[in-house]
Amino acid sequence: MANVYDAAYNLEKAIRESDDYKNLKQFYENVMNDETSKRLFNEFRETQFQLQQKQMMGEDLTDADVQKAQMQFSLIQQNEAISKLIQAEERMGMILSDLNRVMMKPLEDLYGMPGGFQ
Amino acid sequence: MANVYDAAYNLEKAIRESDDYKNLKQFYENVMNDETSKRLFNEFRETQFQLQQKQMMGEDLTDADVQKAQMQFSLIQQNEAISKLIQAEERMGMILSDLNRVMMKPLEDLYGMPGGFQ
Repeated sequence: MANVYDAAYNLEKAIRESDDYKNLKQFYENVMNDETSKRLFNEFRETQFQLQQKQMMGEDLTDADVQKAQMQFSLIQQNEAISKLIQAEERMGMILSDLNRVMMKPLEDLYGMPGGFQ
Repeated sequence: MANVYDAAYNLEKAIRESDDYKNLKQFYENVMNDETSKRLFNEFRETQFQLQQKQMMGEDLTDADVQKAQMQFSLIQQNEAISKLIQAEERMGMILSDLNRVMMKPLEDLYGMPGGFQ
């Protein structure tokens, strides 16, 4: 019987060695190594985080919030390095979500619903 | 290079074959095969779910809510089959959370924080 932790470490290794992860890493480094892209990207992430926090607290977004987010979004769309990074993040996000679904399948089978008892 | 999906299916298999999963499955079936335990357990889960929903919507719990949850909790604590199931669920929950952390490690390394960009 394979130990679950060994199997998880194998999965971790496979993720690190995958083209999708290598691309993500390269695109992340490209953005971080360019001062303008780095600042733009970090500001965009910071705004996203703040707006999410507001929504989770049940606060309404102001017109200024929405305008700021839209302006930052149009700026990052014009930045090739950031656009590539965001696409690679979306792809990696989908893969991780798939992998997580596979991992949760035994519980789903037992409890008859996604996520099982959790 | 191992394919990430193959590695995930191996992990799924290892989970299914683990003693922790087999115990959980056995304890779940024991509860489901006993009418009283089954009803008690399902009521407890239903109450938990309702209270979580309320809290997520920002609603206050009433005294009646709290009393109902406490009474159900004391009933299930006296039920050996359910107690075993809940312990097995807690253990499986910790293992799955560990496995998930291992799987997310490559992203954490890249982004310098748990969960990475997600």
